[in-house]
Parts: sequence; structure tokens; C-alpha cells
Amino acid sequence: MSVKLTPDWLHQLETPFLLIDEARYQRNIDRLYQRVAHLGSVVRPHLKTLRSVEAASYLLKNAEHPATVSTLAEAEGFAAAGYRNLLYAVGIAPHKLPRVARLMQQGVDVHILLDTPEQAQAVTEFARQHDVIFSVFIEIDCDGHRGGIPPESEVLLQIAQQLEGKGAVVRGLLAHAGESYNCRSEEAIRVAARNECDAIRLAARRVREAGIACPILSVGATPTAHYAEELEGISEVRAGVFTTFDLVMHNVGVCQKQDIALSVVSTVIGHNSEKNWVFVDAGWMAMSRDRGTAAGPVDYGYGLVCDMQGNPLDVCLSTTNQEHGIIALPADGSLSVQDFPVGSRVRILPNHACATAAMHQQYQVLQAENDQPLSWSRIIGW
Amino acid sequence: MSVKLTPDWLHQLETPFLLIDEARYQRNIDRLYQRVAHLGSVVRPHLKTLRSVEAASYLLKNAEHPATVSTLAEAEGFAAAGYRNLLYAVGIAPHKLPRVARLMQQGVDVHILLDTPEQAQAVTEFARQHDVIFSVFIEIDCDGHRGGIPPESEVLLQIAQQLEGKGAVVRGLLAHAGESYNCRSEEAIRVAARNECDAIRLAARRVREAGIACPILSVGATPTAHYAEELEGISEVRAGVFTTFDLVMHNVGVCQKQDIALSVVSTVIGHNSEKNWVFVDAGWMAMSRDRGTAAGPVDYGYGLVCDMQGNPLDVCLSTTNQEHGIIALPADGSLSVQDFPVGSRVRILPNHACATAAMHQQYQVLQAENDQPLSWSRIIGW
Repeated sequence: MSVKLTPDWLHQLETPFLLIDEARYQRNIDRLYQRVAHLGSVVRPHLKTLRSVEAASYLLKNAEHPATVSTLAEAEGFAAAGYRNLLYAVGIAPHKLPRVARLMQQGVDVHILLDTPEQAQAVTEFARQHDVIFSVFIEIDCDGHRGGIPPESEVLLQIAQQLEGKGAVVRGLLAHAGESYNCRSEEAIRVAARNECDAIRLAARRVREAGIACPILSVGATPTAHYAEELEGISEVRAGVFTTFDLVMHNVGVCQKQDIALSVVSTVIGHNSEKNWVFVDAGWMAMSRDRGTAAGPVDYGYGLVCDMQGNPLDVCLSTTNQEHGIIALPADGSLSVQDFPVGSRVRILPNHACATAAMHQQYQVLQAENDQPLSWSRIIGW
Repeated sequence: MSVKLTPDWLHQLETPFLLIDEARYQRNIDRLYQRVAHLGSVVRPHLKTLRSVEAASYLLKNAEHPATVSTLAEAEGFAAAGYRNLLYAVGIAPHKLPRVARLMQQGVDVHILLDTPEQAQAVTEFARQHDVIFSVFIEIDCDGHRGGIPPESEVLLQIAQQLEGKGAVVRGLLAHAGESYNCRSEEAIRVAARNECDAIRLAARRVREAGIACPILSVGATPTAHYAEELEGISEVRAGVFTTFDLVMHNVGVCQKQDIALSVVSTVIGHNSEKNWVFVDAGWMAMSRDRGTAAGPVDYGYGLVCDMQGNPLDVCLSTTNQEHGIIALPADGSLSVQDFPVGSRVRILPNHACATAAMHQQYQVLQAENDQPLSWSRIIGW
């Protein structure tokens, strides 16, 4: 492992730590933003992957730029940083409405999501009692993947009418092609993207024919965002993991390995020469327990090992314990434990960037323009 | 779901949150401590599961009580709380020696672990340069599971002689029967426990015959600790997850479901009546990505769902996204989505307590003696 071409701090900071490659991060953002703009829509980035105000500054051009969050802790954190257009894209639980209302009182345009009459009732009741008007998105099911209402369902109109003008505005509809993560060809992703848009357009037509404007049509998942061929009538595209990508996205075919902007830096702590094993200090506490590539075309174990310049070494983090990782070297003798001296370092690309980032409170940033250390913070909790 | 028999705060705190059942926690500790004492040894608890000073106070009787940690962040955290006998049970990386030395200067008896001549050399070099004497454990391999030196190996004596009196004291030997987590019968665990003890006794005999005292023989893993039939000559037994247990340990046969002291409290946020799915706000961010029961005799998905009194409902958290969990109800109609109203709560037992606890910064404690809320903090980072 050469230590050249990389700044000293990369070799000195306590390991394991999470590293963001700023040049790749920026390139990934530019790629999707330009693509979606070209199709006449805008990106409402999902901030759940890194949950970081500093990281979000690359994504949100101004305070009104639309953003998506997965927890109220994120909504509060990004609101405190000045962002005012936040879609909380997890079905609302009634007891969370007071926190949403508090953010609205601070001038933040928080949108909530729901897909049941029970939730709609809780929203209108709370709105009446507390004299607030909620901005609501109704979730549309486009692929049976998770939640949402089928676009042709009667319940959709029932919920929309239950809400509109009764303490709530149906601000929009939301669809998420979760099944696109399981696609194995570009054509399959294109079909998923078409389904996602078609489902939400059908739902919107029905709701609008019922006299409810529901102005915002929000679709997206990282794979469909990169393969949609048209976005006619689609107001915005949500995507999250596209900023860093990961090995799951590489397996889906959405990115190259050299696009992956997130890795974990780890130190070699021992060897088993007989078994040709290298031990590192990145266990599942640093990588997460995510085995998202296990069912994919290539199984990368707990991650793909790279040298400190970020070049893949064609060897995986095979096994992890809490604070131990084992790199089982290939039987062909192309690499030996002597290639990984005790104390040397490697970078490990993750299966699933969202899960790996969740194990860290800070991210170190390899800046594109200078060698100085820089650290971003994660918003923690719920 | 009845809300009776449980304190109000359990139904009011923001979800998801991690809950510790104090009575079960204490009972699990008493069980193992009494067992090991009866066999003439002591428990050196591994604090990595909860990484909490408050939780450790149930395990460490006084400042000198032996403890095990998996990171230097834990060593520093527990040292700050006054504990002075800490085994850092992950192979030492050379760059971590200054932090160890700083703790030693504060009067903390920190023991480091290694299993290669390279590490031993780094230790003696640092010791000579900085005039410190390290307390070292050498790791013995008893089952080919991870690291360690085979007890009959020449390298063992080489490392011991490399260290002893040269800036280090070989304080002891350590073995960990990691393979015991894969045992499927009590007899298999007994065999693993015997192997663990036999391997370390053989290694100790050889090191002692070479004139090096290595006074402490440390064995352990939660399964072997509960099934060892004798601990002749064994100074101490390490175990970690025994305090809370989990579904993996239940699958191994070490505990009953009603012994599991850790659960995640989650709110129902929606339904899919056609599919008989219940959505909750515990995704893998709250449960972890651990699928440790996938290969076991019973696969509990991402966790076993219980009512708020902690009674198992014979239904699992089938699927998780980052902040969504899906409970797929059984096809036999024994439970319907109406049994889980939007806004109601469930408790979910984890596959792997260490991994689930790692997703939380605080733990809420259901106290045995009173209804008051109590919170424990986790030590974070590396």
C-alpha cells in the first residue's frame, strides 16, 4: 500500500473512520441534477443518507430548495440550518403532529405523508384542535413494495376529500419505486420508472377530477431517477443514495465502482498467514450489518477493499465481528498478507451507504481542491 | 394492544426508542455471575453490548472489577467513570498505543491484546521509546473462528519471549470460542467450552514452562460461559450479550424469549389491509441490519413483535427500510391489522442486541421497582 498521493491526515486519524471523496460526491450530484433538469423537473434530494447540514449544502441551492427527510430529528436539524421546504417522507404517526406543528410555527414548510383514513382523521382532528393547516402528501403505491394506495383505489379519493380544506391541504402525491433496487437490467429500471410516473399521473388525474388540485407530483428512487426517459407533469424527483452511491447501486447498474464517494478507512491489526486472512479494525460497527449485495450479481461480503488512493483491490471484507473485520485473500496467491503490513491502512467501499453512514457521527472529507482535513457532522436520533 | 400495566411514559416518549427491562437485565447478570462463581472463577463482563456507564454499574462491583471493552473510546469512557481494570480485547494497532499509554499514566490498568510478532515488536519499540510497560494478553485460537495463535504453535513462545520484560508483561492469555454462536445443541456448546479451556490451558502450560508466568487465563463467549462444566485454572470468563440476550442467543439455546431484556418500542404508522401488513416506525435504523437469525432454527426476520407488556405475539418484523418496518401478519387470520391501530405501540425483540443497541445513543429503562422513566447513555465512537 503506497501512502503517496493522499494527505497525511488520512494516515494519522484514529481508525476506523468514514471518508467522503468530495470530487466524486460533487460529480454524482451534478450528474443527476443535470439529467433531471434536462427532463424538465427538479431534484428534491433525500437527505437521509448522510443526514448532514454540511453535506446538504451541496444539494440545496437556497433555503427554499425542496428536500426530503426520514425523521423529524432531520427536519428539525435542517430547519435550524435555515432550510424551509422539507418533506417528511415516512407515514405520519399521530403523536408526531405536535413536533410538525412546532416546525410550521417557525415558518418551515413541512409536508407530511400518509396513506390511511385513520392518519387523515388524526391530522384533521389535531388541526382543528390546534388551529393549524397541515401540508399533506398522499402516498401512492406503484409496485406493491411497501406502503401507499393503489392509484385506482376509492380510498385515495376518500382520503383526499377527508383532508382538503379540513385542516389540511393535499399538497401533492408521492410514489417510490422501491422495487427498482431489485432490478437487474437497464430496461427493467426504465420500466420501473415508467410505472412510477404512470401510477402517480393516474392518481393525480383522479384526485384533480374530484376538484382537488394536489399540485406537486413527487416520484423517485435512485435507480428510476437515473433511468426515467420522460418526466412529463412530474414536479420533482426524490433520490438519496445517488450522492455517494454504493456497491448495491453498482450491482443495480446505476454507477461505476469509481463513482462510489463513501468508504471506511481501516487499519490492519493482524494476520492469519495459514488461512491467508488479514484482520482490520473495521467490523460491523464501522461498516454496518448490511449485506445488501448478498442477493446481487456480485456478493461483496461486507465491502470491497481498496488501497488508500481508492483503487479497488479485487478482495472483500469477508466477515465482520463487532470491531474486527476479516479480509480473506484469494487462493490464487495474487495477494498475500505481506501486502497488508500490520499498521497499514485500506479503504473499504460499503454495500449500502445509508447503513454505513448511520454507524458514524462524523465524516471526514477528502477535499477536491486542497489537502486539509474537513469534517461533516451527522444529525442523530429520531 | 392493552396499555395497562405499563407506565405512561412508555406510551408517550418519541418512538422508536430502545427499552431495557431492568428486572430481566439483573436476573440475567445474577444467573451468570452465580454460575461462574460456583465454578470457582469470576466474570470479566464485556461491556461492548450497551457501552454504558450506568449499565456497567450492575456488572462492576468496584473500581477494580475486571471488565472487557472493544474500543479505546469505551476504555476512556469507563476509565473516566472510575473503572481501572480494562481489557481492550481487539488486536492492538500500533498507532493506538499512545492512547493506551495515556490511560496507563492516569493509573488505569489497561491490557492490550495481540497475536503477531509485528504487533509485539511495535509494542516493545513504543515501550522503549516512551518508558512504559504494557500489560499484554496473547490471543489463543481455539476454533479457527477469527484471530489468535494455535496453542501448540512455536510463534506463541516467540511472541511471549519477545514481550516479557522488554517493555511488556505477558499478563495473560485469551481465548474466545466464537464458533459457539453457531452451535445447535447443548452438547455442542459444552464441547466448545471444553475446547476453549483446553486450548488456553495447553498454551499456558507451554508459556509457563518457558519461564513466563502469564498469570491470567481468560476465556469466554456467552454460550460457553453458560455451559462450561468446569473452569479449573481459568482465572476469568468473558461474556457480553448475556446481560440482555437476544433472538440469536435464544436460537442457540442459551436463553428463553422471556429472558430478553432489550426491545425497541415502535409506533404503528399505517396498514396495507389487502396484504395484511402493518407498518411501524422501526426500520433498520432502529433495529440494525442484523439478520443473525436468518441461518438459525427459527428466522425472526428483523425481530419478534411483542405487546407493550413484552409478551411475544408470534409475528415478526418481516422487512425493514431505513425508517419503516413491515409486520406481515400470518395468513391464518389469527391477527388482523385492526389488532394494531394506527398510533398504537409494540415492542420488538432484536436478533442481535449488540447491533441493535449500536443504533441508539440512549436507552430507556423500565425499572423493576418503580414506574419512573430512567435513561442510560451509550459511549459513542472509537
